[in-house]
Amino acid sequence: MPQSEFDIIKEFFANQGLHRNDVPLGIGDDCAILHVPENHCLAVSTDTLVSGVHFPADARASDIGYKALAVNLSDLAAMGAEPAWVTLALTLPEINTPWLMDFSQAFFEIANRYSMQLVGGDITRGPLSISVHVSGFLLCGAGLTRHGARAGDRIFVSGNIGDAGLGLLTYEKKIVWPEQQFELKKQALNKFHRPVPRLALGAAICGIASSAIDVSDGLAADLNHILEASDCGAKVDLGRVPVSKGMSILNNQLDIYSLIMSAGDDYELCFTVPENNINALSHLTNQLGVKVSEIGKIQKKKGLQLDAQGQAVALPCFGFDHFKTV
Amino acid sequence: MPQSEFDIIKEFFANQGLHRNDVPLGIGDDCAILHVPENHCLAVSTDTLVSGVHFPADARASDIGYKALAVNLSDLAAMGAEPAWVTLALTLPEINTPWLMDFSQAFFEIANRYSMQLVGGDITRGPLSISVHVSGFLLCGAGLTRHGARAGDRIFVSGNIGDAGLGLLTYEKKIVWPEQQFELKKQALNKFHRPVPRLALGAAICGIASSAIDVSDGLAADLNHILEASDCGAKVDLGRVPVSKGMSILNNQLDIYSLIMSAGDDYELCFTVPENNINALSHLTNQLGVKVSEIGKIQKKKGLQLDAQGQAVALPCFGFDHFKTV
Repeated sequence: MPQSEFDIIKEFFANQGLHRNDVPLGIGDDCAILHVPENHCLAVSTDTLVSGVHFPADARASDIGYKALAVNLSDLAAMGAEPAWVTLALTLPEINTPWLMDFSQAFFEIANRYSMQLVGGDITRGPLSISVHVSGFLLCGAGLTRHGARAGDRIFVSGNIGDAGLGLLTYEKKIVWPEQQFELKKQALNKFHRPVPRLALGAAICGIASSAIDVSDGLAADLNHILEASDCGAKVDLGRVPVSKGMSILNNQLDIYSLIMSAGDDYELCFTVPENNINALSHLTNQLGVKVSEIGKIQKKKGLQLDAQGQAVALPCFGFDHFKTV
Repeated sequence: MPQSEFDIIKEFFANQGLHRNDVPLGIGDDCAILHVPENHCLAVSTDTLVSGVHFPADARASDIGYKALAVNLSDLAAMGAEPAWVTLALTLPEINTPWLMDFSQAFFEIANRYSMQLVGGDITRGPLSISVHVSGFLLCGAGLTRHGARAGDRIFVSGNIGDAGLGLLTYEKKIVWPEQQFELKKQALNKFHRPVPRLALGAAICGIASSAIDVSDGLAADLNHILEASDCGAKVDLGRVPVSKGMSILNNQLDIYSLIMSAGDDYELCFTVPENNINALSHLTNQLGVKVSEIGKIQKKKGLQLDAQGQAVALPCFGFDHFKTV
C-alpha cells in the first residue's frame, strides 16, 4: 500500500498515460516544461469537482476520474481547441488503494483517448475534491468565443438536451423507469456520469459558428452567457430542443421544459451560425455523424424569449449556480 | 452583496489586476487564449491549499490569498521561469463579502508585483480550498531541474531556513517569545504567512546551478528529491544551515536541527553549483543582494548524511508528507 503522496504519484499517476513530443519535462520536478507549436496559441481552462456538489458523494471512483477530465475537455471543445496537456490537483480524505486505482484508470482512459498527457499536479489531504487544468492548441487568431453572435444567426445544439439531468434524477431514484426500458435508463445514467466532450464538433465549427459554449449550467443559463457577451437576445422554440427517447417516455413524470433549460451537466455544445454558413454546417455534421438541431434565432431585442407551441413561456429557474439563494 | 458565482467573479476577480499583451482572451469565456513568446517554452505548476492543512482554519483571508499564489510562484522560481499567467479554482463554504475582498486584494497584490495576469478559474461551493495553476516562460532548453546535481557540486540555500516552522509554532502559541523581541516574532510570523518567492534568484542561477528545488516540505525532504532525481548523495553540515536571529534566541525552546531540516514552508531555494561556477554565483548574489549559504556537498555515496560539529547525526522525521503514517 502506498505510504505517502510521493508513493501515490509514483504508483498511480507518474508512469501511466502517454508521452507527447511537446513535453520536454513531465511529472516529477517543480514545474513541467511544455512546448507550444509554432503559430499556435494556448487555450486553457480549469474546473473543480467537489464531492456532494458536482458528483454524488457515493459516486464510483471511475466515474469521478472520467468526469473530472471530461468536463474540462468540454471547455476546450467549446473553444474549438485541440487537447494537449492536463494537470490534476487531487484532495483526498485518506489513501484508499482500490479507489485510487479505479480513479486513475478512468482518468487515463479518457486522457489517452484524446491524446492528452498528464504533466503535473498535487496530492493533498482534505475533503474529496478534484481540480483539473487543461491546455489545448488553437491556430493564433482562431477559436470559438461567446461574443460573436449577431442578430439573425441561428442557434444550434448538439445531441440531446436534459439527459444528464434525467440521469441524476434516475441516480437519485426520483423517477420510476418502466422495467423494459433498461437500455434507455442506462443511457441516461451514462450521460450523467460519462458525458462525451464534443471535441471533433468544436474543432470543425471553428470558422463556421459565430459563437459557442458548452451546456454545463443548463441551456438557458449557458445561452444567456452568449447573449450577454454578444450584447443581443434570442428566441428559442422549446419544442425544437431535441430530447432523448427516454425523456419522451417519462414525459408524465417530468417537467421536460424545465429539465432541458435548467438541468445542466449535458456537455453538449450550444452555438450560433450565420445564415450563410448553414449549408457548410450541415455538410460537416453529416461528415462527422454528429446530430445538431436548430432551436432558435438570435435577435436584437435583449433577453431570452422562450416559446412553446407558439406561446411565450416563463421558466422559474435558470440553471445551476453554486451560490444562488433563490 | 454578490448573489452568485458569476457575481463573485465579476465583483472580485474579473476586473482587478493587470492586462498582459500576451493574453488575447482572458476571463469570461470557456477558455482563456494565451500567446507564448517565440523561442520560449512554458513552465507550469499547480498547488492546492486546504484549510486546516496548508493554513490554519482561522488564518486571515489576506494571508491565504497571498500564500496561495506565493507557493506556486516559488515553483516557477525553482525552475528559473518568468511568471506570466495564473488560474484560480476557489472552493468556498459560503459567500462572505469581506473575506472575498481581503482574499482577492492580497491575491492581486502579489500577482501584480510579479506581472501575472489572472486568466481564468472556477468558483464552487464546498469546504474551503484553493487550487492555483501558474505558467511562466523559459527559453527553450533552459530551466533548473532536479536531476542535474553531480558529485562535487556544492549545496546552497537562500535566506534562512526553518523560520516558517518557527512562525507556525509562534502562531500556535507553542513557544514563548521574550517581550522585547516583538520585531523578530513578527518576522517569523511573516515568513510563515507571507513567504517571498525567490524569482529573481531562480532566474539568475539558470546556467550556473546544476539543480534546484524550493524548500516546501522541509530541507531534508526537498534535498532528497534532488538526490533521488540526480542519483547521488549529499553531506550537509547542520551548523552551516543559516538560521534567523529569532531562531537563535529561542534556542532553548527548540530542537533547531529538526526544525531546519523538517519544518518546510520556507520557500527558499536549495540548489547545487559545480565548483567552477562558485565565483559566478557569488558575483550575481552580490548584485542581487540575496544571501546564499553553502551548506554541504554532493557525493557519489547515496543518501543524505548530516553532520553537526563533525559528528554524524540522525533526525527522526524528514519533512511534511500529507499521508505519512509514521
